Amino acid sequence: MINEKLPKMWYGGDYNPEQWDADVWKEDDRMFKLAGIDVATINVFAWALSQPDEETYDFGWLDETIDRLYSNGVYVCLATSTGAHPAWMARKYPDVLRVDYEGRKRKFGGRHNSCPNSPTYRKYATIMAGKLARRYKVHPAVLIWHVSNEYGGYCYCDNCAAAFRTWLQQHHGTLDAVNKAWNTRFWGHTFYDWEDIVVPNALSEEWSGSRTNFQGISLDYRRFQSDSLLECYKLERDELKRITPDIPVTTNLMGFYPELDYFKWAKEMDVVSWDNYPSLDTPFSYTAMTHALMRGLKGGQPFMLMEQTPSVQNWQPYNSAKRPGVMRLWSYQAVAHGADTVMFFQLRRSIGACEKYHGAVIEHVGHEHTRVFRECAELGKELQQLGDRILDARSDAKVAIIYDWENRWGIELSSGPTVALHYVDEVHKYYDALHQLHIQTDMISVEEDFRKYEVVIAPVMYMSKLGFAERVEAFVAQGGTFVTTFFSGIVNENDLVALGGYPGELRKVMGIWAEEIDALLPGQHNQIVMRGRQGRLEGTYDCGILCDVIHAEGAEVVAEYGSDYYQGMPSLTVNAFGQGKAWYVATSPEPKFLKDLMQTICNDHGIEPVLKAPQGVEVTRRIKEDKAFTFVLNHMSESKSVPLDGDTYVDLLTGEEHRDTCEVPARGVMILEKRRG
Amino acid sequence: MINEKLPKMWYGGDYNPEQWDADVWKEDDRMFKLAGIDVATINVFAWALSQPDEETYDFGWLDETIDRLYSNGVYVCLATSTGAHPAWMARKYPDVLRVDYEGRKRKFGGRHNSCPNSPTYRKYATIMAGKLARRYKVHPAVLIWHVSNEYGGYCYCDNCAAAFRTWLQQHHGTLDAVNKAWNTRFWGHTFYDWEDIVVPNALSEEWSGSRTNFQGISLDYRRFQSDSLLECYKLERDELKRITPDIPVTTNLMGFYPELDYFKWAKEMDVVSWDNYPSLDTPFSYTAMTHALMRGLKGGQPFMLMEQTPSVQNWQPYNSAKRPGVMRLWSYQAVAHGADTVMFFQLRRSIGACEKYHGAVIEHVGHEHTRVFRECAELGKELQQLGDRILDARSDAKVAIIYDWENRWGIELSSGPTVALHYVDEVHKYYDALHQLHIQTDMISVEEDFRKYEVVIAPVMYMSKLGFAERVEAFVAQGGTFVTTFFSGIVNENDLVALGGYPGELRKVMGIWAEEIDALLPGQHNQIVMRGRQGRLEGTYDCGILCDVIHAEGAEVVAEYGSDYYQGMPSLTVNAFGQGKAWYVATSPEPKFLKDLMQTICNDHGIEPVLKAPQGVEVTRRIKEDKAFTFVLNHMSESKSVPLDGDTYVDLLTGEEHRDTCEVPARGVMILEKRRG
Amino acid sequence: MINEKLPKMWYGGDYNPEQWDADVWKEDDRMFKLAGIDVATINVFAWALSQPDEETYDFGWLDETIDRLYSNGVYVCLATSTGAHPAWMARKYPDVLRVDYEGRKRKFGGRHNSCPNSPTYRKYATIMAGKLARRYKVHPAVLIWHVSNEYGGYCYCDNCAAAFRTWLQQHHGTLDAVNKAWNTRFWGHTFYDWEDIVVPNALSEEWSGSRTNFQGISLDYRRFQSDSLLECYKLERDELKRITPDIPVTTNLMGFYPELDYFKWAKEMDVVSWDNYPSLDTPFSYTAMTHALMRGLKGGQPFMLMEQTPSVQNWQPYNSAKRPGVMRLWSYQAVAHGADTVMFFQLRRSIGACEKYHGAVIEHVGHEHTRVFRECAELGKELQQLGDRILDARSDAKVAIIYDWENRWGIELSSGPTVALHYVDEVHKYYDALHQLHIQTDMISVEEDFRKYEVVIAPVMYMSKLGFAERVEAFVAQGGTFVTTFFSGIVNENDLVALGGYPGELRKVMGIWAEEIDALLPGQHNQIVMRGRQGRLEGTYDCGILCDVIHAEGAEVVAEYGSDYYQGMPSLTVNAFGQGKAWYVATSPEPKFLKDLMQTICNDHGIEPVLKAPQGVEVTRRIKEDKAFTFVLNHMSESKSVPLDGDTYVDLLTGEEHRDTCEVPARGVMILEKRRG
Repeated sequence: MINEKLPKMWYGGDYNPEQWDADVWKEDDRMFKLAGIDVATINVFAWALSQPDEETYDFGWLDETIDRLYSNGVYVCLATSTGAHPAWMARKYPDVLRVDYEGRKRKFGGRHNSCPNSPTYRKYATIMAGKLARRYKVHPAVLIWHVSNEYGGYCYCDNCAAAFRTWLQQHHGTLDAVNKAWNTRFWGHTFYDWEDIVVPNALSEEWSGSRTNFQGISLDYRRFQSDSLLECYKLERDELKRITPDIPVTTNLMGFYPELDYFKWAKEMDVVSWDNYPSLDTPFSYTAMTHALMRGLKGGQPFMLMEQTPSVQNWQPYNSAKRPGVMRLWSYQAVAHGADTVMFFQLRRSIGACEKYHGAVIEHVGHEHTRVFRECAELGKELQQLGDRILDARSDAKVAIIYDWENRWGIELSSGPTVALHYVDEVHKYYDALHQLHIQTDMISVEEDFRKYEVVIAPVMYMSKLGFAERVEAFVAQGGTFVTTFFSGIVNENDLVALGGYPGELRKVMGIWAEEIDALLPGQHNQIVMRGRQGRLEGTYDCGILCDVIHAEGAEVVAEYGSDYYQGMPSLTVNAFGQGKAWYVATSPEPKFLKDLMQTICNDHGIEPVLKAPQGVEVTRRIKEDKAFTFVLNHMSESKSVPLDGDTYVDLLTGEEHRDTCEVPARGVMILEKRRG
Repeated sequence: MINEKLPKMWYGGDYNPEQWDADVWKEDDRMFKLAGIDVATINVFAWALSQPDEETYDFGWLDETIDRLYSNGVYVCLATSTGAHPAWMARKYPDVLRVDYEGRKRKFGGRHNSCPNSPTYRKYATIMAGKLARRYKVHPAVLIWHVSNEYGGYCYCDNCAAAFRTWLQQHHGTLDAVNKAWNTRFWGHTFYDWEDIVVPNALSEEWSGSRTNFQGISLDYRRFQSDSLLECYKLERDELKRITPDIPVTTNLMGFYPELDYFKWAKEMDVVSWDNYPSLDTPFSYTAMTHALMRGLKGGQPFMLMEQTPSVQNWQPYNSAKRPGVMRLWSYQAVAHGADTVMFFQLRRSIGACEKYHGAVIEHVGHEHTRVFRECAELGKELQQLGDRILDARSDAKVAIIYDWENRWGIELSSGPTVALHYVDEVHKYYDALHQLHIQTDMISVEEDFRKYEVVIAPVMYMSKLGFAERVEAFVAQGGTFVTTFFSGIVNENDLVALGGYPGELRKVMGIWAEEIDALLPGQHNQIVMRGRQGRLEGTYDCGILCDVIHAEGAEVVAEYGSDYYQGMPSLTVNAFGQGKAWYVATSPEPKFLKDLMQTICNDHGIEPVLKAPQGVEVTRRIKEDKAFTFVLNHMSESKSVPLDGDTYVDLLTGEEHRDTCEVPARGVMILEKRRG
Repeated sequence: MINEKLPKMWYGGDYNPEQWDADVWKEDDRMFKLAGIDVATINVFAWALSQPDEETYDFGWLDETIDRLYSNGVYVCLATSTGAHPAWMARKYPDVLRVDYEGRKRKFGGRHNSCPNSPTYRKYATIMAGKLARRYKVHPAVLIWHVSNEYGGYCYCDNCAAAFRTWLQQHHGTLDAVNKAWNTRFWGHTFYDWEDIVVPNALSEEWSGSRTNFQGISLDYRRFQSDSLLECYKLERDELKRITPDIPVTTNLMGFYPELDYFKWAKEMDVVSWDNYPSLDTPFSYTAMTHALMRGLKGGQPFMLMEQTPSVQNWQPYNSAKRPGVMRLWSYQAVAHGADTVMFFQLRRSIGACEKYHGAVIEHVGHEHTRVFRECAELGKELQQLGDRILDARSDAKVAIIYDWENRWGIELSSGPTVALHYVDEVHKYYDALHQLHIQTDMISVEEDFRKYEVVIAPVMYMSKLGFAERVEAFVAQGGTFVTTFFSGIVNENDLVALGGYPGELRKVMGIWAEEIDALLPGQHNQIVMRGRQGRLEGTYDCGILCDVIHAEGAEVVAEYGSDYYQGMPSLTVNAFGQGKAWYVATSPEPKFLKDLMQTICNDHGIEPVLKAPQGVEVTRRIKEDKAFTFVLNHMSESKSVPLDGDTYVDLLTGEEHRDTCEVPARGVMILEKRRG
């Protein structure tokens, strides 16, 4: 992603001048310059300001803001302001208000508060997008459209119920098909009329948010609500594109946010952007995985880091300050994984309401003599020097992990086998093992072309959707290595069990049959006992949560269980299939096992680490044309030596050369490029 | 209970062919035969199928099913399908929908979802029962009626409010009597009009489910709702009996389920049946106690084990598989305590909705080559061989423990003295002590004839209802031993305190006065210090939760408290009363104390253990005419030696003879009958 | 407070004869005499009895009760009975019923259940007050009016919404001012019409009770609801005063109850009264602090101990009995801190409803031969002997701690920086340190005249209201010592941040700038490392929760942080300002630090302990004219020696003389007066 108006890493963030007076704006201008800020996200929550009543629109303040910023060298990421409706609209047209999970009609308040199927909301949001597009289509400051803000939340109102029935007709065709997909003969829930169907919430089929009597309706409701919000996005997007076809359009996503199927969303976005809010104790490999997922949403295309805090957050239970250097380190971590922007929430701290204790480039004290501002300004300078060199560089990973929102919904909605199973955590265990080994890894959609990779891992691939098993078979047959686990291949896309033995359609390629699934009580463990040494794997490993009781049907039994009634039965198998291999990990193992397994598989394929860095140092690579940029990120609070591969490297941030090893300071960053002969 | 159509332990369970196609039915037939299954519970949730709209009834599928099963040698336990109303009914007649504890009108969803005072529900449920009765009255396959399913849940709608007022008039007569019973002058709640009374829930007098401002209204509402559901049962039962007077009628109960007064229900049932779902870590003495309670509901009459899982459940947090042998062991545990059937939920696993991960005889894989199926088939064979030999055999216990739902409601609704007091747990402590001693013990109603027993124990008999104290006095006077505890005899049936000193009407027979009740903080303890040796009791024991500060008024002080301001005051007393004794346990003791106390009392009465089995082995006895069947159940995962009493015994399951000792394998079962000279 | 009708410590409590029959009343009369009871609080919950319907009033029972009591020597504290509306009123006029935080209209039930803005409630409550006043204005038994009971709880109904808008107009003037005060441009919440404003609850801006999107509206709603209930009080108070101007008026408060701004309430009360319900494990310094707060509500005026239990409570999770002597000890603790009455809830235990397990002077057993009654009777005798000697004596504290309800609301509503910050606990840490040092300490309003004191401490003075900083400056300039802490001076009364650097307006007097606020994760700590010895302070202390990262701007750096990125930066500073000093404690320290700091500051001012008593012994002083009463309270279960100051003292309770040291028995109490010449 290289934007000709501003062909460098955009640097800036959310900016709300409407909360301040003109004398403050002057200070903003001065300090933005000091900080090297060149992009401001504006108009995110100004709907009520620009449209004070149904008839009136007033964009004077916005004209002024954009002109002022531009004349000061700051471009704009222009939001459409539809992330929160005005109070007058809620009073005049209550259909914009949501009904919540408990079945309660909400009143005006909060944000991300509009019913996605409200005719009023859709109408006025689209009009607003059109007015903005027409007004600023020729303004040179506008880099990109930022539609609404952090879409999320579900609604359960009567408008949604009606739209849900229509959605069901479109997706299932007949009521018979719905009854079949949801297995409504269970508990005698057969529907004889579309109108019999009510939305699944705490008043009908669900409780506690993710417990349900009927997985089918709950799964479809998640799809429907994700689609409904996406439809809102598309209405604005289409209007913007119609008028300003050349200005890219995005909306800011939220990593592993559970409610929306971002792979589906990303197809409608020109560029993915997202808001990165780890807490001080989030593992840095978890953040890395999330960046990789955001990169994977559009098949590896670079993304925007739309928001991060320069210092503290306000909404965590304990809002620790980012230690010195951490803001810079985490900014480059984003870049290392594919970000082409570094942006903050926010540029100036608000003085009132719930985000006033969220960090900003300009703090409440108002001047530049703060640690936070100094760190921001230093980073701004670096990014200016970096120019466009890294922009649009891509990952060259040979290993991919599949993540799928529908699969997640299926697991989370499942009644049984255990509450201890958390899909994202299981995915992270695999990512973390690879991350510790410094193996480049992509996070991909279940629809991605597996042939881009040599190794594809699908942890807890509970839901095996149409065609998935065939594509896995083709991938393995052609020499790929596929890894999946316990509780995989169990259901189809309607959460109906694949009869004939688990893991259903994957049974053939895996060469095993899972007869039983045993859930372990908290504190209970079993063991993975290797039948012999296999690559890096040897001895005995701990495991727990779930144990599939499996039989090899052609697969080699690599390890067996160490105890309980399935002692001696397979806990790890590998099946030779065509030219490739399919591994089945029948239980949830301790981290060391996964590290050894991943190492073994990578060795098989000759997949090398980016660098053989010590623990606590993260390394990634981005490729652009014939150039490779190696990012070295030291997450530790002491300096670390990182062995290089014999070549001489130049650090783009300092211009210094490194050979043999490089010494990375505490929380330091290097971007190494091989010196040309 | 011997049914002439099928005079053996019925073996089978819930079966939902309406969820499957005809080709699957053929497999069912084949596999039922393999498994020795001879009874299927059908039509549990098929209301919507048999009555697709208000006017139409279609029992073709049911005719076909019953005929098919019968021609394959399988009888039916025929449910009336009223455990969940059809979706069309909810839409057309919203009065069938409940209002929940939070005051929210529910929408269609779930099961056990009908308002018990809904005119629509009552009307159509009764019609359905009548139609079924008329249609199948002469079908030889029908063994028993299974009305609705697992009745439960309360409703708080306006229909219930009106019915509650009528119920109150019937039970209290006048509004004055209600005001008195509820002590409404407290907080000025006096009612001057029946219409002033609203249902007690989170919008009025209650919160958190069991917290209430007025125990009186909350207690009556529990009685009323239990009666309302019972009325629904009776409407169907009466209709069935009118048409098929010779077919027995049951509904499946749920052990210690808190919401319904099963002693009252059992009076309306021909045979008690219940669903047994312990988790892997439920103490087996707790399951034993529950079986004993179900046996006690109808004064010792054998009961049906209506449901159990052959393998896993789906709704527990951690759904462990029943280990090999455990399904058989727990099946015989039910029989050992009075079950005359062994039945499962379910015969074939569903493919969709929330119970698809609940175990079944036929698993998703669909064939017989599974551990679970093999175990089921082996048990089926055994039960066939067993024939009718044990059917209708009875307990010969001389010890009984009183359990009472109204007493439980009173304790659970009480504001003070401590949240640490759990009635069922206190009851279980006594049962467990006797169970460890292998003393046959019945669980009885407060209305049972105490003279059947030599020892009657009433843990935490908080509510002393009309006539209870007199009956205790008569029992003790005639030589019985009565045991009760702290926080007993406090209130009458309206939860009004008996003035004049605790334990109220029991004060005379116990020979003590409880001046204060002290609640101990978590982690705080006191001691029961024996004043001398008394039978097996000696030394010092730990105690906690509540300590009654009592004075002996004629009773002998057997032990005193070891600390705090009531150190030296009585903690255990025994009162000679007529020819018997009355023990007062003033606090909640450690298990060893109860074992020693129970041993002491049983020795007094010459009550012997069934066998002197080691820990982990359960023994019970069932008597039939002149035969005694001794059940030996090894709950441990290693084999155990059990000393016999010198006679020679034959194991009904193997035909083998045992003398002196028998060696019971891990999770093994023996049913021993003394060899006839 | 000396009442000429009964010039002694009133002794008695809540009494509900309407729950009993005439034969019980006779026993009451007899036993009150035995117990020395001379005051009964009556008519608290008898609205429904006195007004059985809209038209009818019947005070016959009350006439009889008052006459009976008075003829038996018992005066009355006469309640207005408006703490719970009658059931008929709720049915006829649903506007008296509240809408709860979840937006649900409540039904009849509970108490303290009336909407404070209900026209019906206000009308009939006022009428009732007037009728009572006219009827009993000349009755010699009436000592004081007790309006309603334990006011509390918020309502969210439409009447409240309308009243809220009016309140906002009165307090902010214009809608523009509201928008500004609430910073509504944040998230585009600008209001263009008063009607756009809805009440903040779980359906609009809030969740979980104290989480909010907009602190401004939530803060104002707390003020508004506190004012609304106060308005109800005032309507009754005005009516009473109009008719009986000479009878004092009170309502019973609840210590640190969070929902009402008692400083504002106290202005409208003739005398403060409150209900003291510590649990067995409440630190006695916490109870002491609460008494001090109640004394501080009216600037040091003695208060009434309106309620305490003689033995157990019923609503705590674990309701331990007060150990022997504890009721007497805690009664005198109240007196020691300014109480001029000792009163119980209640005189006779009810037999039904939720408070029947709450202790009373007369227990369910009904006679006087109980430990509890004996202790009550002994105390009654002592109080008779004590006469009026202590009445109206005052504290002579030189140290004061500021507590402020609006500040508390601000902190509790804050989104960030940490959920670990609990305002009252932080206040208690300071109070406890002084209490352990036996330094007399007052709890004062933020509006109190600081010049009464030498040392003023304002823990976590988050909200710096108009004029506060100036008054602190004046106080310090004139030689006072002021102490404040981290997270102080941050916002104004609208929760808008003071720009220009924390601690805002306090920055000048403190001589520091707080650049950052770091929240520590649970288990994380830092250290306060003294730069040298300062008074009692030396070495290193532990600290946590929040660490302000501060810069000295004139203040002396007394201690620095021991670790993390702000190691070496100030953690404790003291600023010389005029003739006084201002200490800034930048983090939440361990108790030992605060003890050393308080000792150091008191030494500076020559403030001496009341007595140098050992740990576990509490000492306080009350001054009356030229007399000083020293209270010595031994909270331990063993006797303690307390060194005196060389003079000879007489114990008012025994008449015994003490010199040099006095030996206070376990849970013993002495009231020492210096022997004259």
